[in-house]
Parts: sequence; C-alpha cells; structure tokens
Amino acid sequence: MHLLTVDTLEQAQNKIYSYLAKNELKTEKIALTQAFQYILAEDIHAPFAVPHFRRSTVDGYAIHSLDTVGAGESIPCFLKVLGAVEMGEENRYTVKRGECVYVPTGGMLPNGADAMLMIEYAEKFGENEIACYQNVKHNQYVVDVGEDIPEKSLVLEKGTILRPHEIGVLASLGLAEVLVYAKPTVAIISLGDEILQAGERLEAGKIYDVNTYGLYAQAVKFGFAVQEYHHVKDDREAICRILENVVHHVDIVCVSGGSSQGEKDFTASLLAEISTTGILTHGIAVKPGKPTITAYDEKNACLLLGLPGHPVAAMLLFELLAAQVYRKLWQVSPIVQITAKMACNFPSADGRLTCQLVQLEREGHEYTAIPIFGKSGVVSSLAKAQGYILVGMNSEGVKKDEQVCVYLI
Amino acid sequence: MHLLTVDTLEQAQNKIYSYLAKNELKTEKIALTQAFQYILAEDIHAPFAVPHFRRSTVDGYAIHSLDTVGAGESIPCFLKVLGAVEMGEENRYTVKRGECVYVPTGGMLPNGADAMLMIEYAEKFGENEIACYQNVKHNQYVVDVGEDIPEKSLVLEKGTILRPHEIGVLASLGLAEVLVYAKPTVAIISLGDEILQAGERLEAGKIYDVNTYGLYAQAVKFGFAVQEYHHVKDDREAICRILENVVHHVDIVCVSGGSSQGEKDFTASLLAEISTTGILTHGIAVKPGKPTITAYDEKNACLLLGLPGHPVAAMLLFELLAAQVYRKLWQVSPIVQITAKMACNFPSADGRLTCQLVQLEREGHEYTAIPIFGKSGVVSSLAKAQGYILVGMNSEGVKKDEQVCVYLI
Repeated sequence: MHLLTVDTLEQAQNKIYSYLAKNELKTEKIALTQAFQYILAEDIHAPFAVPHFRRSTVDGYAIHSLDTVGAGESIPCFLKVLGAVEMGEENRYTVKRGECVYVPTGGMLPNGADAMLMIEYAEKFGENEIACYQNVKHNQYVVDVGEDIPEKSLVLEKGTILRPHEIGVLASLGLAEVLVYAKPTVAIISLGDEILQAGERLEAGKIYDVNTYGLYAQAVKFGFAVQEYHHVKDDREAICRILENVVHHVDIVCVSGGSSQGEKDFTASLLAEISTTGILTHGIAVKPGKPTITAYDEKNACLLLGLPGHPVAAMLLFELLAAQVYRKLWQVSPIVQITAKMACNFPSADGRLTCQLVQLEREGHEYTAIPIFGKSGVVSSLAKAQGYILVGMNSEGVKKDEQVCVYLI
Repeated sequence: MHLLTVDTLEQAQNKIYSYLAKNELKTEKIALTQAFQYILAEDIHAPFAVPHFRRSTVDGYAIHSLDTVGAGESIPCFLKVLGAVEMGEENRYTVKRGECVYVPTGGMLPNGADAMLMIEYAEKFGENEIACYQNVKHNQYVVDVGEDIPEKSLVLEKGTILRPHEIGVLASLGLAEVLVYAKPTVAIISLGDEILQAGERLEAGKIYDVNTYGLYAQAVKFGFAVQEYHHVKDDREAICRILENVVHHVDIVCVSGGSSQGEKDFTASLLAEISTTGILTHGIAVKPGKPTITAYDEKNACLLLGLPGHPVAAMLLFELLAAQVYRKLWQVSPIVQITAKMACNFPSADGRLTCQLVQLEREGHEYTAIPIFGKSGVVSSLAKAQGYILVGMNSEGVKKDEQVCVYLI
C-alpha cells in the first residue's frame, strides 16, 4: 500500500514561487487600447498636475461669486459679458466685479473669476449682458490646478489590474503605451488513450477531451496566453518527445491526466526527467486535486505542472498553482470576493484543503451558498456552479448559516 | 432658461431596446478555444448520456462490493485478478464473486462489478491475486451511465456567459464549435477642440483624450468589438462626414462630448439629422450622465449614442445604455454582485438615479462601501473606485450601515 506524501497548498505554491522568483518578470510595452486586464509593471506618477489649468465643469459664465449674493429664481442680478473662452484655447480675459465670460465645460477659467454660473440659470439680456438667476458659491463648478491629481504624485501602483477606469487615468496623463507584465505563455498537453477530439466518433470507453478546452479558457481568464495544445496517447516516448520540445517555447507546461499512480501514469517520471529540479511536489492536500505534480526546468525557465485528469480539479489547480503564484509575483492586489451564507453544514476533509463548488442564490442583499454534491459532478456540476469555497485543512468545517467567502469562477 | 426634458434610465433603455429588438440578433459559430466570455446563442442539449458507459473515478480494481464485507486495514480479503481494462477500450470481462479486474481512472467498468477498490488499498499478492484492505461500498467510485448528464437533457441555456467551466461542459459533449452572439461593433468618436492625442504637447486649456481609451476598454469589457475610433475637432461638417461614414460599418456609434447645450455642442442636431428616428432621448435622469443623447438609424441598424464628455459618466452610460440593453436582448442571466455596508449616510438626488463610485474595504466577511466624493473626481476617483452603487430617484437615500449592492467596475 503506497500513499503519496502530500504537500499543503502553501508548500506547493512556495516551491514554485521560489523558482519563478529567480527570473526577472517579463514585461512589455503595449498600446492603451490593448491594455484591458493586463497588469501594470511600473508605478505611474503624474508627469503634470491634473487639471493643469483652472477648469470649468459646466457650460456657463465665469463670474465673481460675490456678484450673485441675493440672486435667485425671481431676483436676477445682471452681468456684463466680456466675451467667450474658446474650448481648448488659453484664456485671454480678466474678469472684474460685475463682469463675466462665457466658458464651455472643460474650458479654462479667466483670471479674476472664482466660480461658474451654469448656462441653465443665465438668460441673455441684450447684446452684452446676462441675467443670473442663482446665488453662486465660491469655487462652484471650478476644478483647481492639481485638485484632481497633484504633479508627480503616485497615480497607479505596479501590480494594478488595468480596468477601463485605470486605462482612462493613464490616457489622462497623455500616455499612449504602458509597461505591463507579459502574459506567461502556456502549452497544454492532454494525455489519454481514452480521449477523443471533437468530431471523432464516440465509442464505448472513450470520452471527449474536456481539459484542453477548460484549461485553455482558464488560462485566458487569468491572463495567460495559450501558445499550443496537444493531445497525446498514453505512449511514454510520444509524450516525452512533445515535452522535450515545448519546454523551449513556453513559460508553463500543463500536462493533464497521467498524474496518478496507474500503470500508464507517466507524467511524474517524465517531469522528473525533463525538469532540472526533479519533482517538487507529487500529491497536494487539496480536495479535489490530490494527484498533482510540479517541477521546474531551470534551463528553459519553464514551470511543469502535472494536473489531475478530473476537469474540476485540473482547472482549480491551474488557478491555485499558476494564476495565484504569478499574481503573487506580480504583487496584484487581492480580488473582491463574494460573501455568502452557507446553506447547510459542510465538513472539512481530514488534512486537506477542500475546494467545494457552490451555487449562489440571492435573496435581497444576501447570498446563500449551496454546495454542489455528487461524485459524478464532473460535467454537470461545472455548469451549475457560480463559484467555490475553500474549507481549511485544520478547520472544523463550515456550519449552516455561517458566512463564507465565495471565489467566483 | 431652457432645461432639458429628461427620460428616466428605464425609459431611455426601453426606447433603445424597442429598436434593437426589431433586428435579428447577429450570431456566429466560433471555436471553443475562442469562446471565453462570449454569450451562448443556442440551447445546448446533451447529444448522448454523460458518461455514456459505467466509469471508474479512481485507479484500482473493479469488484463485487459484497466480497469486501469485513475487510479492513489489518484484515484483508483476497481477490483473483482476471486482467486489466485498457484505458479507452471497451470492456471484455465479466467479474464474478471473488474476482476483480484492474481499471484505471476513467476506464469502463466490467460487467458484474458494482464498485471500485482504490489501488492505494490493494496489494499485489502473487501473479493473479490481490489483497484488499477496505470494506468497499456498493457503487463506490463508479459513475453510472447518464448519472452526470442524461441524454437529451438541457445542459446550457441560451444567454449563458461562457466561462471556463461552461466551455469544459461543451467540450465534454464533443462540440468543437458553438453558436454565440456576435460582438456588436462599435465606433468611438471623441469630440473637442481641447482634446489632445497622446504624444502631442500639453498646452493651457487643452487636455488629453480620456474617453476614447476609457470607452474602448469598457466596450471590450462588456463584450463589444471596437472597430474604429476618431478624434474630431468641434467642426460641424467634419463631425458630420465621419458620422455619415461610420453608421454604415458598425452597430453602435458612441460620440463623446458635445452632447450638452454649449455653443459648439453639435451632437444632438447631428444625431437628429443622421438617424431615422430623430432624437429618442436628450437628457437622462442619471447622475452623472444627464447630457446623454440617443437616436437610431433604422436604415443601417445603427444605434447612435451621444455620451457625456465627463469620463466617469461616459463609461457609466455606455454600460447602462449599450451593455445592459444588449444583455437584455441576449437574455443574459444576472451577474453576481457584491453586497456591502454603507460607510455613511448618502442622499439621493432629486428625481435622478445616482450612480456613486465607491471604494470597498474588507473586514472579515464584510465589505464597507465608502463613497468617493469630490467634484474634481474626474480622474483620481477612477483609480480609487472598485465599483458603484445605484441610488434610486424615488428612494430616500442610503443610511449608514445599510446594505447596498455594489456593481464592480
């Protein structure tokens, strides 16, 4: 009776981290239009104050606010119009008491003026005069120089995931390109005599390849670039040839299947041969996902992962061992997670971190997490689940109604 | 004093919806590897039962569970090994009491056998015999035909967003391609004499183009494809020429800026000219976002949006008017949102739906939503915000400690 000696998730992650951390992280300059969901590889400081001139936030008239004291809907005050600031032009007016200048939204405020009167509260009154129907406050609708971003201040930190809003910020600083971490490249190798490719005729004993496509999408989701994928029969030599080849091309090789202890499970011995480190982890205290193998090829700077054949486990372990470790390297700030109330008691597995798929049900502002059970759940549970919970190896499990953190999938 | 007559968000959305719904939704077949985050445009029924043969979920021996009654770690029972089922091959054995057959994970169970003994609890004992150190339960580690997905059952519904897990499900059904909704194509037109492109020298009165890049990323985020983008000065003829041209190429034209009532705000009059419907909405009861214009060109089936120049508002209104309406057309199931506790009292705006950017702070399982205030917040608030809350136009606002729903950005 031979049982695998298992690593905890943390041990397995730390081993990978220690090898990956030895290499400089790959970065690239990309155009802002392509930057969505990339991770910033440099701190961004404001090269100038934003705004860099006193700006109006409305269409209207730049005025002295004191001139409007007492003005209202039925009691206008009257102001002399000196002219208009053109959009995008430098101001050439000075506004004195009793005077005003038209300024469009985003336009530069004239000297002297301390507030904006919205056009909706002004009425033209003769050629060069307006009636003002509002008591305007000092600084109303005016943004001061640097009020938004002071010059040289830190605007975005290294490790920031670039959402549309951050991309807007970068654009406001006049940047056309930005330095981001290059997407680590991935090769997926799906093993098994029983694996059919789409289009092939279904036969007893055979199943269609799930892991190639599930891992492909999982890699894309977490910011990796799948460079190649292969299906290989359980033929040690054929697998070896492919492996020896791909380690030169990619940052991560994901072998799915063949990682257990069956008679045709060559993954462990092959990864031991091909890596320079030998096997780092064989067996991990995560449920599902026990038969997971990690190794590292220092010569080619290539991480070798032997993922379980079970699709739920393969996708999970990719997230835990590739995505999470890279996010740590990139110092990505933690992702917002969902809190939910557990629908029932849920036991922890002896000595293993349990990753349990759950469905979410919403009632008002509360979510309930309903575990998806069933040994069979290979495929149907995938389609039902909205996320997963992690139950620690040393916890006593989760009680009904307890709050849990749900990681969305 | 001329104030805009405003639509509520729902009115504005319904007008757009009614025109878009007249056209057939565009779909396309795409390869599974490219399907991540596309939206399914067909119901998927299982073409066969999954699994379509009795499968083992472990490496081990197919046995009669009754043979193991009383067996345990110190009291093995002994079974005769008939042979091994090859991975991916049809079974040719029949297991009788006292017999067993080796079956790898995912292999087909032989006739007669009703459970699997894990290899970890078996020991080879002579050439054709094993010792079994476990009391195995009926059906243990066996998945029955159709237990995962019965034949012809509905597996995924039209309108499902394809995450890695759904892609795995589609792969398990032998599908290489899938019918999805085509990404609506977008043209972004950014207006303004004050707008500089990255690389141009900063001058007083001018600012860099934020909206083109923010809207570009926002469109990508919500599953749209940006086909072209243009910056045009405030020149009515130049804008008109571009507009007349792009309506032939794309599904949505987003004009940002020029939508208010300033002297150079041509957007409304141009969209009125170019559309066949005239202006549908000019002014919307959303804060920020009031100066928003919608129209529709029925001849070219092109939605025309005049978005505010303010970047936060432009991105928000794109989400509310383009993304949300398309999601309704596609019947996409609602997205999971974050619940948070409000950090302070927050008033509602008179007669307007308020969209307030918030920062999230986590403590244990609870999030607190902290509104990001400041009139200036054009750029810096973008970088701080994790999401936004919506405060209804008829609500009394949100009280401190009240639960709110946060839409992540």
